[in-house]
Amino acid sequence: MSVFTPVPEPVLADWLKGYAIGRLVELKGISAGVQNSNFFVTTTLGRYVLTLFEDMPRAELPYYLHLMAHLSRHGLPVPGPIANRDNEYLGTLQDRPAALVVRLSGGSEMQPGITHCEKVGAMLAGLHLAGQSYGRRQENPRGAGWRDATAQAVRPFLPAGEQALLDAELAFQATVDATALPAGAIHADLFRDNVLWDRDEDGTPHIGGVIDFYFAGFDALLFDVAVTVNDWCTQADGQLDPARTRALLDAYHAERPFGADEHAAWPAMLRAAALRFWLSRAADFHRPRSGEMVLVKDPDEYRDILRLRAAGVPPLPR
Amino acid sequence: MSVFTPVPEPVLADWLKGYAIGRLVELKGISAGVQNSNFFVTTTLGRYVLTLFEDMPRAELPYYLHLMAHLSRHGLPVPGPIANRDNEYLGTLQDRPAALVVRLSGGSEMQPGITHCEKVGAMLAGLHLAGQSYGRRQENPRGAGWRDATAQAVRPFLPAGEQALLDAELAFQATVDATALPAGAIHADLFRDNVLWDRDEDGTPHIGGVIDFYFAGFDALLFDVAVTVNDWCTQADGQLDPARTRALLDAYHAERPFGADEHAAWPAMLRAAALRFWLSRAADFHRPRSGEMVLVKDPDEYRDILRLRAAGVPPLPR
Repeated sequence: MSVFTPVPEPVLADWLKGYAIGRLVELKGISAGVQNSNFFVTTTLGRYVLTLFEDMPRAELPYYLHLMAHLSRHGLPVPGPIANRDNEYLGTLQDRPAALVVRLSGGSEMQPGITHCEKVGAMLAGLHLAGQSYGRRQENPRGAGWRDATAQAVRPFLPAGEQALLDAELAFQATVDATALPAGAIHADLFRDNVLWDRDEDGTPHIGGVIDFYFAGFDALLFDVAVTVNDWCTQADGQLDPARTRALLDAYHAERPFGADEHAAWPAMLRAAALRFWLSRAADFHRPRSGEMVLVKDPDEYRDILRLRAAGVPPLPR
Repeated sequence: MSVFTPVPEPVLADWLKGYAIGRLVELKGISAGVQNSNFFVTTTLGRYVLTLFEDMPRAELPYYLHLMAHLSRHGLPVPGPIANRDNEYLGTLQDRPAALVVRLSGGSEMQPGITHCEKVGAMLAGLHLAGQSYGRRQENPRGAGWRDATAQAVRPFLPAGEQALLDAELAFQATVDATALPAGAIHADLFRDNVLWDRDEDGTPHIGGVIDFYFAGFDALLFDVAVTVNDWCTQADGQLDPARTRALLDAYHAERPFGADEHAAWPAMLRAAALRFWLSRAADFHRPRSGEMVLVKDPDEYRDILRLRAAGVPPLPR
């Protein structure tokens, strides 16, 4: 989330007349994130997040919005999109497709412990179980096709050693068939900054929100687990922390048990997940876009994670 | 909300396997309310309210649940119902129709000030505006038909002076045609105990939730305003507090302006709203039901409010 397209307050105030959420009280840009323009919007009746979609095809957006609505109405802390008075989730603002969603409470935890990882594992399983009854289908926008195209685009910018790593990994991934694994709607970007934490009365952290579903798509559920483990359970040196990894995977496994095919595919999935973020970050790094507030993440972190995962990973729980 | 039907924890834990919200952590009966059995349910993934519908026809329940879903997805702080893994809102538990909804945060404010009334007025207008696009229609279950039948049933229990008041009011209401007024889905029970208040960072109260839609139905929007004003703006002596009444009505009027027909009907609507609660409370008082925890409210309060409203009321804002 960043701001690429400014929205003047009077323009927003007028646009909000198409909704039943009262009048604009406050509008504030959000600086986190890398893809769309996002704002906190407070009205007389509630608190929302406004997203202007910067370079996503309009036809693909209902998949994300209805997925969020689906997961939210299945009881998971996912920001439900807000329908306007014409009953539509998707509108147009500043010549961009635009949507409001519920603003959930809580803040990111960038130093997660075992309890956080356990809760994230259980939540991810809940998302996957609820997603099984989601009726729409759209391929993972950062799946195999995107991977190969992006690899071609960024390869020329890489030093020789990284080109060799990339070539070897692409060759390895070409031998992996993930299409037979249990699949469904996956978040595909469940990083620490996309989970909001609240506290119970007794101080125990709980998940107040899972946000940013704009990389979601249909793919292997295990790929989503791998993306999540690579972010939540990785130490500063890039190695997986054994206790956090076990906590996340055990909690997931308790809700949706891993199958034999998933045990076999696990090392390849962790590598595929690392490759996907190395590539997207390398693409953003070498070919950045302009914007009012843009966050570019370090590609080297995921290059190193990919190298380490290729050297061996702990097994899934049985 | 009360508890008429107990739910053992193992029974609920088993029932929750049909949902994607994790495992049961805590189950707790709720003692407030007069109609259904209600429980706070905490799972590993969230906090919910469970309702067992005690004597409402199952066929009428989807109207309420889908109305809550509709208002929630229009951005209003209404508890959205939770779909199970078969995508259904309505299930069966302990041989009763049963549903889970989101548990919203906040507590009731039984001594509302001007700011509370202003916010309730704006919220009620938001509910009415969003309700205009709700596709289902079910008559107000406490509308004119119920009123006349209930009046016949409780009349024999009343002392002579109250019988005369009742007869006179029924005769007056028979001359009122509310069917030409702007109508839609109304909450019809927006009392102080059905609004949950939270606080902003700066301490300003805001509405965290509007709950208990199980008296909702299609009726004159102004009837809903009258029900709300009679509860939120009435002093201990039964008279309307001028400042609170004005705050609520002005805030509503700013979002959905009152029409000329509504100005004319306002005194009759305040009386109809008072009569409706006098009758339901008298019926509960003279013919109580049994239950583990049952709350019976004093009918005399609304008998007195009816008398006072019949003596004159302040006009709607123009």
